[in-house]
Amino acid sequence: MKYKVGVCQFKPKLLDLEFNLKKMENILSDVEADLIVLPELVTSGYIFCEKKEVQSMAEKAEEGPTSKLFRKLSKKNNTSYVVGFVEDANNKFYNSAMLVNPDGEIFVYRKIQLFFEEKFFFEYGDLGFNVFKAKKGVRVGLMICFDWIYPEAARTLALKGAQIIAHPANLVLPWCQQAMITRSVENQVYTITANRIGKETNKDKELTFTGHSQIVSSKGKIIKRLSENEETLFVTEIEPELADDKKVTIHNDVLKDRMTEYYL
Amino acid sequence: MKYKVGVCQFKPKLLDLEFNLKKMENILSDVEADLIVLPELVTSGYIFCEKKEVQSMAEKAEEGPTSKLFRKLSKKNNTSYVVGFVEDANNKFYNSAMLVNPDGEIFVYRKIQLFFEEKFFFEYGDLGFNVFKAKKGVRVGLMICFDWIYPEAARTLALKGAQIIAHPANLVLPWCQQAMITRSVENQVYTITANRIGKETNKDKELTFTGHSQIVSSKGKIIKRLSENEETLFVTEIEPELADDKKVTIHNDVLKDRMTEYYL
Repeated sequence: MKYKVGVCQFKPKLLDLEFNLKKMENILSDVEADLIVLPELVTSGYIFCEKKEVQSMAEKAEEGPTSKLFRKLSKKNNTSYVVGFVEDANNKFYNSAMLVNPDGEIFVYRKIQLFFEEKFFFEYGDLGFNVFKAKKGVRVGLMICFDWIYPEAARTLALKGAQIIAHPANLVLPWCQQAMITRSVENQVYTITANRIGKETNKDKELTFTGHSQIVSSKGKIIKRLSENEETLFVTEIEPELADDKKVTIHNDVLKDRMTEYYL
Repeated sequence: MKYKVGVCQFKPKLLDLEFNLKKMENILSDVEADLIVLPELVTSGYIFCEKKEVQSMAEKAEEGPTSKLFRKLSKKNNTSYVVGFVEDANNKFYNSAMLVNPDGEIFVYRKIQLFFEEKFFFEYGDLGFNVFKAKKGVRVGLMICFDWIYPEAARTLALKGAQIIAHPANLVLPWCQQAMITRSVENQVYTITANRIGKETNKDKELTFTGHSQIVSSKGKIIKRLSENEETLFVTEIEPELADDKKVTIHNDVLKDRMTEYYL
């Protein structure tokens, strides 16, 4: 089955939810696909200095402005989206991503492996690593940014049947894009890393994000790697069923051949 | 502590144990280091067509010609070695590697994740992934070639305290060298991949090995990557204690921060 997937490399404006949603709407409104992945915390920007900034960006997954916009786009364009946002769940705040489907259904992942000062502003994700059905029943596993450094994250998603790992990110370290090729190969899954670009400052803090969003095939081929600093949307066709074949050679199945009795 | 490690990229002659040992002796005899890693099955070559070929190359770990040579070299040069060989253990044959120390001690790893037709010629390793003390008490974990594609292999070695992962290999797929950078980063360990070079044929079978043996730091830096096709020995100094620091940022410890309750 041909499946049209997209990756949106984006630069949000810090602490300006309305502006960011409007810009995303402009970029996405005329693009039909099956699944489009956007970056982590793309509604809010990344660098927080105070908890009240986080609070000001936080929204309920089911009822906030982000789910409202993406449900609208999803229905209009018959497209599933994965988008990072600040989640408010009973006044606890999570670095979350939602999968929004054309039928209006929403699935949420709360980031488990928090990076750097995120630990001061977000709760640890408490929903586990899960795989959800996107448009056409394709099985999409969600993880966010720094989850990449834990092979157990992508592995768990693959073991739960993911054909595509949707990976919203705000990357600042230099290794992830190459590591995601390894994640694709070791699990024989597609990976879509949607990274942000640009420099962001808040008071005395400053970070530069690395761009190079990418789509990697289940056989470890870089289908597309975007530039370092261009805000852009790239759409291509893949075949999700190829990720159901876990064989690296005719004699090697990366999942079935795991010798779990020797693993810690 | 400064620790002199080496990686020996080599081309063995298929099914000629004596020739291969002699050539290794010539290359290594005047080189003093702390630890030198040689490729997988470097005593025998790689492509087997019949079980009797495997048998003709097989030797006991403690008593064979390989341990004899490397005990001699180890004592003479005050150097630990890791070297791949065909192990005979009660008429079962393993794709093994031995760590030989200057005090004459020998530790064995039997390859667990067998690649391709190795499954027809070798038993699956039954000793687990283990960490042993090499010269100066440095903790060395052993894995062989295709074990790279299973993140659980390097992870298990890191959890067992490895500072260096010694990784003899006979690589034919294109991903391992980049993946080993990921293995270093995700575990904050040094990795030394000793690959072989050259084309090998046996009857109608042919393989080309990819060279590019490498030493990667515990912080994910390629300290050295060798050429694609040169038989050579490279020695450099590292600091194994750096691998005891598992922090990627001041707030992120790759091992302590594992959220194991969510991993399958």
